Amino acid sequence: MAGRTNSPGQSVSRRLLAVLDCFDVAHPALSLTEVAKQSGLPLSTARRLITELCDWGGLERLDDGRYRIGIRLWTIGSLAPQQRDLRAAALPHMHDLFQATQENIQLTVLEGHKALCIEKISSDRAVPTQTHIGGRLPLHCTGVGKALLAFSGRELFASVTEAGLTRMTPHTIIQPGRLAAALAEVRRAGVAYAFEEMSLGAVSVAAPVLGLDGRARAALGIVAHSHAAADRTAVDRLAPAVRTAALGIARSSN
Amino acid sequence: MAGRTNSPGQSVSRRLLAVLDCFDVAHPALSLTEVAKQSGLPLSTARRLITELCDWGGLERLDDGRYRIGIRLWTIGSLAPQQRDLRAAALPHMHDLFQATQENIQLTVLEGHKALCIEKISSDRAVPTQTHIGGRLPLHCTGVGKALLAFSGRELFASVTEAGLTRMTPHTIIQPGRLAAALAEVRRAGVAYAFEEMSLGAVSVAAPVLGLDGRARAALGIVAHSHAAADRTAVDRLAPAVRTAALGIARSSN
Repeated sequence: MAGRTNSPGQSVSRRLLAVLDCFDVAHPALSLTEVAKQSGLPLSTARRLITELCDWGGLERLDDGRYRIGIRLWTIGSLAPQQRDLRAAALPHMHDLFQATQENIQLTVLEGHKALCIEKISSDRAVPTQTHIGGRLPLHCTGVGKALLAFSGRELFASVTEAGLTRMTPHTIIQPGRLAAALAEVRRAGVAYAFEEMSLGAVSVAAPVLGLDGRARAALGIVAHSHAAADRTAVDRLAPAVRTAALGIARSSN
Repeated sequence: MAGRTNSPGQSVSRRLLAVLDCFDVAHPALSLTEVAKQSGLPLSTARRLITELCDWGGLERLDDGRYRIGIRLWTIGSLAPQQRDLRAAALPHMHDLFQATQENIQLTVLEGHKALCIEKISSDRAVPTQTHIGGRLPLHCTGVGKALLAFSGRELFASVTEAGLTRMTPHTIIQPGRLAAALAEVRRAGVAYAFEEMSLGAVSVAAPVLGLDGRARAALGIVAHSHAAADRTAVDRLAPAVRTAALGIARSSN
């Protein structure tokens, strides 16, 4: 994130938004110096903008002098209908799926070249995942990512593969041709799998939540432990449950 | 909300935040004219700020020309730890409570003179409530509000009563002395009730989620149908469940 530079002619509002952009799931609390460095703003400008955001309630100052996102921004952000309506339609189905499987359940939407997690249900028993609400997952090596990619048109596939497919594990598909074949299978089956393609020890199964235009509005996924030989069977058992829940969400929200 | 005026000397960033402030649960989509009117900004300024927010992803333009909050603001807002950590600790207990009661479950935190709803679980069978995630409830006439007020110190009580206790129904407590007595009982019992004090036909039971300093970090509440004579008994039955869940949340999050 560091090293973004901001031209002197950049508007004040762009600078204010650049301050907010410094914060993400991996950096929920930042010092003034860190904000200045990551936004490319002079220290004095960053200080003034942070003060204005604190006065408004968009940032809060911690005892150690760092800053974090405040409840005011959460309140306004919670109005975003893309997550609000979808989440309301999805939660009952996600609860059902969690009750039936006791595994991690994730609801994601497409954001640029990533799958943005807008809801998650998990338990202590489930496999630890790197996914947090508000966090982003790669498209080419996760179940939810493949489900979104398979039902989002050829332009997205082209730009994702042009940007390069990062190898996350020895199982990650990094050849565009192999990925295209895998996505064709996802479109045929209505279910996407990822077998230790994102992280070793975890498998995922996902299904798209399709809009009336046949494109993915969201993807619902389960992330489970992979147990060597039992892998494929266990995951195959989860697939109909995920698909049923995704169809239920589509019916509740279209 | 209309009629706020903005001085010419107001900083650009304050004006940008004033645009965001126009949106709330009751007004999730607004036209340019509405934003200008409610923020007190000239039309040309409002248009420019809206364009910058759209370019950034904080606002989205609808087909009818109005604007709504975009997923970018949701993503940043979801980082606010006040709701994030509490919600993560609370959700399993809220699911348990919902399973056991099938009534509306609400998790709220104090924000100014209001109880801000940060999570809600509900079903078609439950009584319709006016509460939405991101919505605000009055403190003096709701279960969650009383639970927060009872465990938030005398200064808050003084400023809430000085601001005036609005009568929502014939059952609303509007005398500060009676409210003080009710809150003393809440502190003694660890549970707060509201019997049709916010809206006719609905009763609520709530318990505070106490921090290590003995103050309310949040309040967990159930809103249920009131059934004339059966009221008190049915609600008394819900109280231990709400209290148990609130204690569980406190233990998971302190």
